[in-house]
Order: sequence, then C-alpha cells, then structure tokens
Amino acid sequence: MEVALILLAAGKGTRMQSDLPKVLHAVAHAPLLEHAMASGAALSPARTVVVAGHGADQVRAAAQAFDDEAQVVVQEEQLGTAHAVGQAREALAGFDGTAIVLYGDTPFVQTETLENMCAALETNDVVVLGFDAADPARYGRLVMQGDSLDRIVEYKDATDEERAITLCNSGVVACKSDLLFDLIDAVGNDNASEEYYLTDIIGIARERGLKATAVTCDEAETMGVNSRADLAAADAAFQSRARAAMLEDGITLMAPDTVYFARDTYIGRDTVIEPNVVFGPGVTIESGATIRAFSHLEGCHVARGGVIGPYARLRPGAELSEDVRIGNFVEVKNAQIAEGAKVNHLSYIGDATIGAKANIGAGTITCNYDGVMKHHTHIGANAFIGSNTMLVAPVHIGDGAMTGSGSVITSDVEADALALARAHQVEKPGMARKLLEMLKAKKAKQQRGS
Amino acid sequence: MEVALILLAAGKGTRMQSDLPKVLHAVAHAPLLEHAMASGAALSPARTVVVAGHGADQVRAAAQAFDDEAQVVVQEEQLGTAHAVGQAREALAGFDGTAIVLYGDTPFVQTETLENMCAALETNDVVVLGFDAADPARYGRLVMQGDSLDRIVEYKDATDEERAITLCNSGVVACKSDLLFDLIDAVGNDNASEEYYLTDIIGIARERGLKATAVTCDEAETMGVNSRADLAAADAAFQSRARAAMLEDGITLMAPDTVYFARDTYIGRDTVIEPNVVFGPGVTIESGATIRAFSHLEGCHVARGGVIGPYARLRPGAELSEDVRIGNFVEVKNAQIAEGAKVNHLSYIGDATIGAKANIGAGTITCNYDGVMKHHTHIGANAFIGSNTMLVAPVHIGDGAMTGSGSVITSDVEADALALARAHQVEKPGMARKLLEMLKAKKAKQQRGS
Amino acid sequence: MEVALILLAAGKGTRMQSDLPKVLHAVAHAPLLEHAMASGAALSPARTVVVAGHGADQVRAAAQAFDDEAQVVVQEEQLGTAHAVGQAREALAGFDGTAIVLYGDTPFVQTETLENMCAALETNDVVVLGFDAADPARYGRLVMQGDSLDRIVEYKDATDEERAITLCNSGVVACKSDLLFDLIDAVGNDNASEEYYLTDIIGIARERGLKATAVTCDEAETMGVNSRADLAAADAAFQSRARAAMLEDGITLMAPDTVYFARDTYIGRDTVIEPNVVFGPGVTIESGATIRAFSHLEGCHVARGGVIGPYARLRPGAELSEDVRIGNFVEVKNAQIAEGAKVNHLSYIGDATIGAKANIGAGTITCNYDGVMKHHTHIGANAFIGSNTMLVAPVHIGDGAMTGSGSVITSDVEADALALARAHQVEKPGMARKLLEMLKAKKAKQQRGS
Repeated sequence: MEVALILLAAGKGTRMQSDLPKVLHAVAHAPLLEHAMASGAALSPARTVVVAGHGADQVRAAAQAFDDEAQVVVQEEQLGTAHAVGQAREALAGFDGTAIVLYGDTPFVQTETLENMCAALETNDVVVLGFDAADPARYGRLVMQGDSLDRIVEYKDATDEERAITLCNSGVVACKSDLLFDLIDAVGNDNASEEYYLTDIIGIARERGLKATAVTCDEAETMGVNSRADLAAADAAFQSRARAAMLEDGITLMAPDTVYFARDTYIGRDTVIEPNVVFGPGVTIESGATIRAFSHLEGCHVARGGVIGPYARLRPGAELSEDVRIGNFVEVKNAQIAEGAKVNHLSYIGDATIGAKANIGAGTITCNYDGVMKHHTHIGANAFIGSNTMLVAPVHIGDGAMTGSGSVITSDVEADALALARAHQVEKPGMARKLLEMLKAKKAKQQRGS
Repeated sequence: MEVALILLAAGKGTRMQSDLPKVLHAVAHAPLLEHAMASGAALSPARTVVVAGHGADQVRAAAQAFDDEAQVVVQEEQLGTAHAVGQAREALAGFDGTAIVLYGDTPFVQTETLENMCAALETNDVVVLGFDAADPARYGRLVMQGDSLDRIVEYKDATDEERAITLCNSGVVACKSDLLFDLIDAVGNDNASEEYYLTDIIGIARERGLKATAVTCDEAETMGVNSRADLAAADAAFQSRARAAMLEDGITLMAPDTVYFARDTYIGRDTVIEPNVVFGPGVTIESGATIRAFSHLEGCHVARGGVIGPYARLRPGAELSEDVRIGNFVEVKNAQIAEGAKVNHLSYIGDATIGAKANIGAGTITCNYDGVMKHHTHIGANAFIGSNTMLVAPVHIGDGAMTGSGSVITSDVEADALALARAHQVEKPGMARKLLEMLKAKKAKQQRGS
Repeated sequence: MEVALILLAAGKGTRMQSDLPKVLHAVAHAPLLEHAMASGAALSPARTVVVAGHGADQVRAAAQAFDDEAQVVVQEEQLGTAHAVGQAREALAGFDGTAIVLYGDTPFVQTETLENMCAALETNDVVVLGFDAADPARYGRLVMQGDSLDRIVEYKDATDEERAITLCNSGVVACKSDLLFDLIDAVGNDNASEEYYLTDIIGIARERGLKATAVTCDEAETMGVNSRADLAAADAAFQSRARAAMLEDGITLMAPDTVYFARDTYIGRDTVIEPNVVFGPGVTIESGATIRAFSHLEGCHVARGGVIGPYARLRPGAELSEDVRIGNFVEVKNAQIAEGAKVNHLSYIGDATIGAKANIGAGTITCNYDGVMKHHTHIGANAFIGSNTMLVAPVHIGDGAMTGSGSVITSDVEADALALARAHQVEKPGMARKLLEMLKAKKAKQQRGS
C-alpha cells in the first residue's frame, strides 16, 4: 500500500531560546526536519506533507531543499497535534493509502521501524510507535491488552498501576489516511490545555470497535529535541552511531571521538581518518585515502589514494582524482584536480582545473575574483607552478609549462613555456645595518619625545 | 557588614612537579588564584589580602593583574594555615568587618555560598564551609550538635563513629576580622607536623563560649588542586559547567566536548559554535554569529552576524563589526574591521583599520614591523585589495581604491585609484621543457658521481 | 638466562575488513607489531623471530624498521598457534635460552610482566600469562592446582565449574626454547578446526611430569585487536595511559582528552600543551616549552622555552633551539632554527638553516624544489626577511642582512646588505572606480545575454 508522510514541524521550541524554528536546528549539519524526512523518504512515499507554523517560510525552504515535491501546509494557530495533522487533510485529498505521522523534532526513527508499523497495519486499524523507557518519567503510557493497544494515558492522568507501565508513547502513528482524518474529526479539546491531542484517536478508534496496536522500537530512535542541550545530545548520539558504523565498514578512525561526521558522509574501506577531522555535508571519499589531522571537508570528492591535510580545507566542488595530494593550509573550492597532482602548502585554488601530475608551489593563489565576477584558471598536466605565483583568472597555463616563483601571471602561458614576471634583484651593501641603526635612532628619539 | 578576603596562596605544590607556584597554574586560561579571587570579588570586598610564599613575586603580579588594589603579604615560612592567615593581620588593621578565608588552589567556591556564610554569621561567631562528601576519605570531619559546629576532627584523630560522618571541612572560614586574629593568637603547634592549624580556632571559640556553625555547599565547589591531574580535572569540571550554561543561554555548540572556553568568554544567543574551537581570555561575541571549526579566538570582539573561520585566528585587539567575514588561515591582531568587510583567505592583518565592505584578497599581508617598530595600515571602505598585496606600513589606502595582485604597496593610494607594482610578464617558449631536461641531466650526473 | 622472542604475526584479521595485515594497523602512530616488539625489546633479547603470513613482505619491512636484526619467517599456511611457533625452530637453532611467545595483535604486555614470567621459569618448566577477567566470556580458562597450572580449558569444552573460573589465558607463554619445540612436536590437530593449538603444550608437559604455572597481569595488558573498533579502543587505552603519565611527570595538558600522543613522544617538565594538539612519531620537547592549540608535530625537536603554534606544523627534521617561536600557519621541515629565531606567520621553511634571532616575515617561502631536486636555504643570524620573500634555493642570506618584502631572492645576499627585487609602484587615479563600473557593465551585459 502506498504511504504518505505527515511531518509535524510547527512548534516554536521556546526552550531552544532561538529565533530559528526548532526543526531547523541541525544535527550533523542537517536540520532535524531533514533527518525525520529522510527516514520516511526511504519508504518512497507517494506524498510528503510538512505541517509548518513558526518560521513557516524557512521551514518550507528547508523541506523543499531536501525534497522538492514535499508539500508544506501552514498551521496558523498551534491547537494541538490532532489539529496539526488535520492541516494535512487537503494536501492528502484523494490519497488512498497509509498515512504516517512523524515529528520534525524527532530525527532518529529508523526506516525499518516504519516498515514494521506498516506491516502491523495489515491486521490493525491504527498503529502507534512505542518504546520501552529506561526511565518512563512523564511520558504517556501505552496500555496494552495482549497484542491490542487499549489506550494511551497521559502521565498526569495515570493511576499508580498505569505509571508502573514502562511502554511509552512516541507519538508516531500509522493509519489509513481517510480513517485518520475521520478519527481526528472526533477529537475534542475538553482538557486543561484546550488542545486537540492526536493520542485521543486511539480511544475513539476503540470505541468504534476498531483495532489498535503498538509497534516498539529502541528508545534511542524516539529521542526528541526540546533544548540546545537535547540538540547536543542528539548530535552526540548521531556521531556515536556514525563512528561505530564507519569502524564496522573497515575505516580506521585513529581517535573516533574527535571526528565529526555529517548525515551523508560516505567513506570507503581502508581509508584512514586521523584525529580532529570535521566533515560537512556532501563528502564522498573512496577507499585507501588518508585524511590527516585538522582537515575540514564539505561538498567534495576524494578518489582512491588521496592524501589530504593536515590542515586542508576542501570546499564544495572540490573534485580530486586518484592520488592527489593536498597539503597544509590549502583551500580548494570548485576545482577539478587530476590524478597525481599536488598542492602541498599555503595555497588557494578556486574555480580551477588542474591537470595530472601538475605541481603547484607553496603560496600559489588563483585570483578568481575581480571584485564583480569569478573567473576560471586552467593549469595543464605536468605544469610546474612556482611558489607564490598569482594566477590572475581567466588564465590558461599549458601542459608542461612553468612559472617563476613570485610571478603574477595575467596572460596565458603556452605548453612547455616558462613564464616569468619578476623584478631584478638589487643589492645595497651595508644598507641593512644602516637602516636598522636609523630605525633604532628614530625609535629612541620618539621615546624621548613621549 | 563589610567583607575582606584573605586568600592563602603560599604553597609550593610539590606534587605539581613545577617551577611555577601552584596557585598560578591555570584553569580555563586563568590562574587558580584568579578564580578564587573572582568568586570573592563579587561580594565587593573592602580589602583583599593575598598571602603569598613560594614565588611571591609572580603571585603578586597575578593577583594585582586581576585586582590592582589587592594587597599581597608574604609568609616567609610555611608554618600552617593559621600562621598564614596571621600574616594578613597588618593588612587588615583598622578593618572592622567580616574576614573570609579562601584558598588560592580552590577555584570554584560560588559567590552565593560565601553570601550564605555571611548570612550565617549574623547569628554565629565563626562559620565554616562544609560539604557532604560522596567519599569522605581522609578529609577532616565537621562534628555538629544540632545547628552548632562542635569541632573539626582530623581524619587521623577521628573515632570510628566520627569517621562515619560525611560532612567534611573545606577549610573556608568566615569570622569577624578582629575575632579571627584573636582566635588565631590562641592556636598552638603542639602536633605531629608542628604546624598552626586554622581548624583549631573552632575548638578555641567553643571553649570561649562562642557560637560556631557550618554552611554547606556542593562538593564540586570545594574541589582543590594538588597535582596536574587535579588541574586537568578542575579544568574539565569548569568546561563542563561552561558548556551547559552556554547551551542553556541559547547558544548552539555542535559538539560541546570539543569547545574550550576561557573563564570570561561571553557569547550571545543564536550564535553557532562548530566543533573544535578554542577561546582564550577576553572574548565577547554578539548574537547570531558563527564560529566555524578549528578557530582560535583571544582578546577579541565579534559583532552580530560575523562568520569566523574555519581556521581563523583572532588575536588581542581584533574588533570586528557586524557581518564581518574572516576566513581560513587568516590571522587578525589589533585591528578594527568595519561592517561587512571580508578577509577570506591566508592573510595577516595586524595593526590596521579596514573600512566597511572592503574586500581583502587572499595572501594579503600588512607588513607592520620594520625590525624595530610596528606601524599602522589603513584600508578605506569598499577598497579592493588584490591577492598577495604587501601593505608596507605605515600606509593609507583610500576608500574605493584597488591594488593589483602581487603588488608591494609602499606609498599611500588615494581614493578610487588603482595601484600596481608589478613586473611585466615575459614568456620563454619551450624553456620549461629545456630546464626540466637540464635539471634531470644534472641530477643523473650527481647520482652517478655519488 | 638469555631470552628470545617469538612474535606471532601471520593472521589476516578478517574482521578488520582491510587489505593491510592486522598487525600493521597502528596505535599511536606505531604498528601493533611494533608495540609488541617494544615490550619484549626491553629484555634485550638475543634473538627476535617474527612469524609472518598474510602480507609477509609488509610485515617484514615493519619488523625490521623497528629492529633491523629481527628475523622474519613465513608461515605459509595458518594451521594454528603451535604450528606458527614451530616456524621459528630454525631461526632459534642453537639458541639455549628462554623463548617467549608474544602476539603481534596484543600490543600492551608490559616488560615487567615478561620479567615476572622469566622469574617464574626458574622453578617451572612452562609459564603461561593469565589475567583475571572482569567478564571472562569465551576466553580459555586456566585451571590451577595451588601454584601449579593444571591445564588450559577452552570455553566450549569447559564444565560449568570450570566456566566459573575467572583466571583466563592470554596466550603468552615462556619456556626454555628446546623444550618448547619438543612440546610442540607432540601437539596434534585432532579437534574441530583441525588446528595445532599452543595451549595443548600445558597438558603435554603435565603428562611428562613437568611443572607449569601461571603469572598474572592486569587485564588491560592482554587487550587484543580483532576489529577496527578494537583498534580504536586500544588507541584510546594507550592515550589514556600516556596522558596520565604526562600529567604525573609535571606536564600541563589543558584538556588531556584532546591531545593525541605517539608511542614515543617525550616531553619535559613544565611544558604546557594546549587543547587539540597531535603528536606524530619521533617528537622530543624539552622543559618549559609551550605547544599551542591546533599544532601538529612529527619527527622534530623543540628546545627549552620554545613557543609553537597555534596552527604550527613541525615536520621531520625540524630542530628548534632555545626560545624559538613558530607561529600560525607555518610549516617547518628539515630545518635547523637557532636560538631565539622567529617564524611567526604563514610561512613554509623547508631544507633550511636559520641563524639565531633571525626574524622571518609573514608569507616567507623557501623555494626548495626546482621540479627535480631539493636545495638548501641558509639564513644568517639576526637577518630580517621581509614579508612574502621568496628564497629561491640554493641561496645564502648573510648575517644581519635584510630583504625587502615581496622580493624574489635568487642570488646570495651578503652580510648586512639589503636585497630588493621589487617593481615600482604606479598609481592610476580614478582607475579603480572606472574598472569597477566597466566590470559591472560587462556582468550586466552577460546576464542580459544569458
């Protein structure tokens, strides 16, 4: 049966102390909402509806950045979870499958868990996701009768017997879409907060003789975020799982706790990651590479055998072929670097192509910006760029060409040619000593004067 | 009632294995002594007396760097805590208020705790600070009789019954100043170490029919430092509290455990701190800024919306206005950078002012030192400094001016002018190939020769 | 009695998911095998035999890199530990002392433990190393009778009573060499895996009326590595011990958990290590130095009072004398830097000597590579190298000489001389404004055209 996702993402998140809507705070460089959408996206949903509220425009942008077919509806007033789900009604008009209600501030529900919920729907009308809480605290409790979910009791309304239950409510619900909206219509707000609670649909369903049950998952999947401390804890939980998975896949992390991964980092087997490496979004690394300490990578690709860092910064669009070497204090952005090329020291390579086995000297800069536009630099295969060469783009350096160190290259250089732009060295004997004496005298005079 | 602080800071700290006096070892970039002084300073003490001994000159300098009115007295011989307190007698001559005895190696006593002690003095003659120890080990025990402190028993002198007490002595004492010195006069050194113990004043006070009591605090406040491992543990405790406080205040720490704060770091709401950031002393950051990974800040100010790093180093005197961008491998020292200016790559900006929206190209260096003196560089608003420009200070670049990349600028440039200092590019066709062949031949010859 | 080491290092380590032989995976920058060899090497063994198998050539290279007298024998088929030890027979021909069997994937057995085993051999024929396991799990159990080791029982063959034993088998064995090979000859492979187990020699020895016993060590010493997660855990255990030892020795680690040590890092008393520092192999630091945050050191020496970093990279061959200052974004390789010299910003110093109190300006690069060979740069004492000077090696700068900023120095500079290679500054009034307008117009035209 087809699936639709309803993501509740309207809350302000007062305890975040932030102007940013809660679901847009990031874990592993991705908004919480994106994590939640991604776990559902693996079910190939027919429709995805995000219910936004606070900061709806920002939420819409983030949702559609991840899935440009996601529909975003706005809950103008926050009147409770049932009311929020109700906002998705029109967006799901004509949809005849299963609706799954997820939460934009609950990033870690696993796809397999959602599949288990869908499977349980084959013999039930409503399925709730529960978890066995180590410390149930003030969570709502799931009251089971055998395999059936009898009702959900809020902590404050629970008897002592019910409070002894450790199976708690995650809030995630799966139900046939039209039935879901029917049930929601029956939910009232006759409670202390005057809110419409999604949990009430279980009681209503049971009254109608429908069957409800609970599927359970690991408590870690239901971790929610309500404060910056929660956010940090969620990030730490993500990192911990990511590190363990990397080790399992045959990647060496010399000091796992010092490596920070993004949601989508991919690394091949036998790659070694030294201590203190940060991955931003969009990084893929093939096998047998080495990412040395203090490197920072985002939006880039490193092919087999690459050696990166220490202190290398690869920015979006850095595409490195086999055995490329990027050394310390080097920044690479939007550049294709061919096999075996080396940029070892103190350089900025932006908007460029570099040919195979080219050697880029220390201090080289592609001067790609003229104050208004960005321009391209091409460096041919086997070229030798002398230290501290300024390549004023647009400029083309031919294969096997060479530039003298300290040259400002403003015109193209043909293959195998040597280009120089250099003033003659002049020596003034004894002048260093004289200058020093003069400067010291001047300083002494100033000090006397002050 | 007015308060005076007596800080005991004479110990050598043998277990530190150090030439530096123990109280000058730092936690969060501040000497232990400064932490202890700071918690007392919030009471606005009328006088502050630091009792120094080992390394007294260094201790004096540190004490007066934090509070230039602090008096430093020297305890020539270390004859015990009562003897140490006694050294403050002259410095407190004529002082008619409450004296509080603190310890330079006990950095975390909270101001509120000291206020509680002062409050307790209203109905008592001597107040001792105690803590309920999770593992009382060999601490002295506070023997209470109801609300009264009967006596302090050293562990080695304690009966089994007394050893079962978990309320332990922190050593911190509050007492009316003149009474304190009276009591100290009565302390003897008839014990195994032949030392004068401050704890003895309780017994003496009780014998005289005076009232003593204990105020308690969290055990963490009484953490003392006796070894480098203790120092590291104290630093970790500080960092842990600082991180939690930052999260509580609405700052995002992506990986809190990788961020190192100084004692006085201030950060505004909705600022994001990426992993691996180190704060030295004297940093203030306004709200909505981003401090990217691997950045190092000390003695600087970042205004709203600033984006710093990765790999940015802001040194003392870096004052950044709104929306300034400092990029990777950039060092800024003693420089005022106006709104919206950018220094994105591989630059050194020292002793400079930079105007609004100026763009400083990669590799730019303010050549501020002539071997004897430092000089100033001014860059006007909207100026465009080409890559690898050397600005030989003192030099003034006008608003809207431009420098050609690779130029060494030794004279002022007027507004809207273009300044160039560049050799012409010369091309020698085929020469790169010839040079390479020649060098290879030379190498081959050398290898045959060796 | 003389000692010989037999290191079993033939396994593939399937669970490592790696093309690299298991024993060559590194902890603290040294292969596991090197750790194991190093603990035995402290006994000054007469012979060391490494039994290699998978990746034997790589294993040989690593073994002989650590100890060039180590013999490496190849076990072509992996038929069990007794069979592996048997491969060492020829290499130990004529050796009349004690053989100790160690494991290349068990890096942390302490030298003192091996000495205890040798001592126990004085009154026993075979000595096995055991450990009291917190969680014995599936380890083999050592069945003792008083001081005698009766037998070793594999977990799967053990009775419930035997499984209750917590004294487990580490596999490490000491035995007179000729007896060891005799016993091995009697080991059969009549078991489920059809392997020859070294543990069987205990039963055989006992049958012959020989005496066996067990020596115990801390469980941490017997930590073995079978997966990348194990490797990371072993590295973490190493770092934890190294940090504690450094603190004990009077070194300040501001944030110990963020400092990564190599197996052989040496640091002197009262040196301060700031957060986030990585040590590669071969680093020695004298007392009273400061290694600032984000520094990376390998194969280098820092003398008393040196101040390194933040963001300094010292590579092999960097030899720094007293009070040298290496600042941010500076790379130093194969260079001797004399007392009090400073390289403060954004520089590359490779294949060079720098004299006392020389000052190397920001952006200085030693252009040591001509595309074929590396050349040397000499900078004299008290020289002042202007910012962004390119020193095209081989080149010699005399004592007290000075170079103008932005100069490309291709010829030697004599003492006290000033060398300049600089184009004249030209100013084009109003040209910056015109250029900007032109570029904006061009961009607008392009945008209309696209």
